[in-house]
Amino acid sequence: MQTVKVALGERKYPIYIGDELLGHGDLLAQHLPQKRAALITDTTLAALYLDTVAGALTAAGVRVTPIVIPAGEQHKNWHTLNSVFDALLAGRCERKTALIALGGGVIGDLTGFAAATYLRGVPFIQIPTTLLAQVDSSVGGKTAINHPRGKNMIGAFYQPLAVIADTGTLSTLAGREVSAGLAEIIKYGLIRDVPFFNWLENNIEALVARDAAALTYAIQRSCENKAEVVAADEREEGERALLNLGHTFGHAIETGLGYGAWLHGEAVAAGMVIAARVSQAVGMLTATDVARIVAVLERAGLPVTAPDFGLERYMQLMGIDKKVEGGKIRFILLHAIGSAFLTADVPPHALETALAASVAHV
Amino acid sequence: MQTVKVALGERKYPIYIGDELLGHGDLLAQHLPQKRAALITDTTLAALYLDTVAGALTAAGVRVTPIVIPAGEQHKNWHTLNSVFDALLAGRCERKTALIALGGGVIGDLTGFAAATYLRGVPFIQIPTTLLAQVDSSVGGKTAINHPRGKNMIGAFYQPLAVIADTGTLSTLAGREVSAGLAEIIKYGLIRDVPFFNWLENNIEALVARDAAALTYAIQRSCENKAEVVAADEREEGERALLNLGHTFGHAIETGLGYGAWLHGEAVAAGMVIAARVSQAVGMLTATDVARIVAVLERAGLPVTAPDFGLERYMQLMGIDKKVEGGKIRFILLHAIGSAFLTADVPPHALETALAASVAHV
Repeated sequence: MQTVKVALGERKYPIYIGDELLGHGDLLAQHLPQKRAALITDTTLAALYLDTVAGALTAAGVRVTPIVIPAGEQHKNWHTLNSVFDALLAGRCERKTALIALGGGVIGDLTGFAAATYLRGVPFIQIPTTLLAQVDSSVGGKTAINHPRGKNMIGAFYQPLAVIADTGTLSTLAGREVSAGLAEIIKYGLIRDVPFFNWLENNIEALVARDAAALTYAIQRSCENKAEVVAADEREEGERALLNLGHTFGHAIETGLGYGAWLHGEAVAAGMVIAARVSQAVGMLTATDVARIVAVLERAGLPVTAPDFGLERYMQLMGIDKKVEGGKIRFILLHAIGSAFLTADVPPHALETALAASVAHV
Repeated sequence: MQTVKVALGERKYPIYIGDELLGHGDLLAQHLPQKRAALITDTTLAALYLDTVAGALTAAGVRVTPIVIPAGEQHKNWHTLNSVFDALLAGRCERKTALIALGGGVIGDLTGFAAATYLRGVPFIQIPTTLLAQVDSSVGGKTAINHPRGKNMIGAFYQPLAVIADTGTLSTLAGREVSAGLAEIIKYGLIRDVPFFNWLENNIEALVARDAAALTYAIQRSCENKAEVVAADEREEGERALLNLGHTFGHAIETGLGYGAWLHGEAVAAGMVIAARVSQAVGMLTATDVARIVAVLERAGLPVTAPDFGLERYMQLMGIDKKVEGGKIRFILLHAIGSAFLTADVPPHALETALAASVAHV
C-alpha cells in the first residue's frame, strides 16, 4: 500500500493506494470520529461492493447506515441530494457521523456536497472506485451537484478525512471508463510533469491493459501532482486552475451533447486537443508536440476530435463556465508539454483555427 | 457609526452599526472585489429599501442584479434557493460577484448559503434589517435553509466580508419583531455578561420604545459578545454552543407549532424560561434569578410560557436537533445569570418539573 499525503495544515489527509483495501475495516474506522457512518453508494456499486465495505466496518465495530442512490451523472442533482438528506435525518445521523462515498465521481461529488452542508458540515471519507475518481475527483475537496444551466454550478470546497483508492475495483470497470481516467492522468503530465508524460508514452498500452504495477504508479504519481497543486492553492485562486486544462472545452462538449453522452474524461481528452491546437495557433506549442499529445490520447482509447457545434455555439456553451472573470473567458494553454498557463487573452482567430482542426460532424 | 470587529484571521470582518447607512454606497462598495453585485431581498423589503441600496451602489459605480424572493420563513427552503441560483446564472454572476443580503434572518441565512455554494463560494455581505438579524443571525457565518424534517438542517459556516446594521431600518418593524430581537439581546446577558444584563433590566422599556441611543448600545454590546464567542470557536466545537441557550426548546416549539406561528425570538424567550427552570430544578439557579429572567422577558413583550405539547412530544421534537451527540440531547443551562454551561446529563424529572412549570395550553 502506498500513502500520498495532502498537506493542508489542520485539514491534511492521507490517500491510501493499494489492492484489497475495501475489506480493511480498521483502515477506515481509524478515521471515524464516532463509531457510526452513513455509507453512500449507487445501485450498480451496491451490488459489487456494499457488503464488503459495510461488513468490514461492522466487524470494526462501526454502526453503518447504507444509502443507495440511482447510478448516473443525470442523478447528480438536488433531487438526489435531498433524498440523501432525508435518509440521513431518518437515520438520525449526527454532527460526528461520517459520510463515506463509495463510488465514482458522481457519488464522491454528491456525497461530499452532502457532507459539506448536512448540519452545516459533517466528517467525510472518499472510497473512489473508478480510475477517474481515484486520480482526480476524490482528491482536493471539490464537491458539487449539477444545475440545469451548467455542470458543478452548486457546490463547496470541502476536504475528506481520508481517501482510500482500492486498485482492485478497477477490474470491473468498462474499458471506456479506464480510458476516461487516463485522460486526467495524461493531463498531469501535460501541465506540470514532463518525466511522467514521457513515462506515460512508454506505458500507455500497459495502463490500457490494466497492468497492476503500472496503474498503481500512475495513480500515485497523479495523486502526488494533484496533492501538490491543491496544497499550494486550495480554493483555485491561482495554480489550481491549471488542473482545468481541456475542461472549458470539455464542459462545453458535455453540455452541448447533454450530460452523460460522453464520459467526462472523454470530453476532457477532446478538450485538451483543442487547447493544444489553440496553444499552437498562438505560437506556443510545436506541431510535433501537438502530434505527441494526440497520439498518446488516441493510444489511451480516447476521442481526439470534438463534436462540430460551430464556433458560435462553443462560445455560448463556454460563456456560463465557472472560470469566467470580468466577462472574459479564461483559457488554460500550454507553453510546452509539462508547462501550462492561464490567459484571458486568446485571439478569436486562434480559437477558430483550433476548433476547425479539431471537430468532426456528430 | 460604531464598528465592531470579528477577529477570524484571514476571514476577519467589520460590523458597522449606525443610522442612515443604507444610502452609503461607498461603505458597501469598498468591500466588493468586483464592481458587480447581486442584491437579494424579499417582496416586503424591496418596497422599502431596494431603491435606496441599489441607487447608492449604482452611484458608487457598481452594476447591480436585484433578486426579489417571497417574504417569510416558509420560503427559506430549497425551492427559493434554487430560484436564486437561476437568477444568478441568468445574470451571469461570476466567482467574484458579491451576493448582498438585504433583509432579516431568512434573507441572510438563505443568501449566505447561496453565497457559500454558488460556484463553490462567492463573496457575501450582510445588510440585516431586523433587530434579531442585527444582533444575532447576521454575525458569525451560520447560513442555512430549512428541511421538512427540521429547521436549519442544511447549511454551511460561511463568513461575510462585512455586516452593515442600519438602525434606521428598525423604525418600520412591528413591535413583535422588536421584542423578538430583544430575546437574543437578553440571551447575551444571561450566558456571559452580567453588567449587560443589569443594564438591560434598567433599560428594557427604552428598548421597547425604540430609543435610538439605547438600541445602538444594545446592538453594539450584543455584536461584541457574539464576535468574541465566534472568534474563539467558529465552528461550534465548544463555547459557541452556549449561544443556543433556549434554542433546543425554542426549535421544538417552532417545529411543534409549524414554522412561522411564533417568531424565532419568541420561541427562544419561552425556551430560555424552560432552560432557567431546568437549571433551577437541578439546583443551580435560584428562584429569585428565575423570576428576574421571567420579568425582563415579560417587560420586553415576550412570551414566557410555552405551548403544552406534553413531555413526550417535546422529547420527540428535540430528538432531531443538531445538538444531539452519541444519542443524548445536550442542554445549555445556567449556573447563574451571566454563566452558562453545556451538559448532556439532565435527569428526566428536572425536565418534567421545568416543563410543567412553563407550559400553557394553546
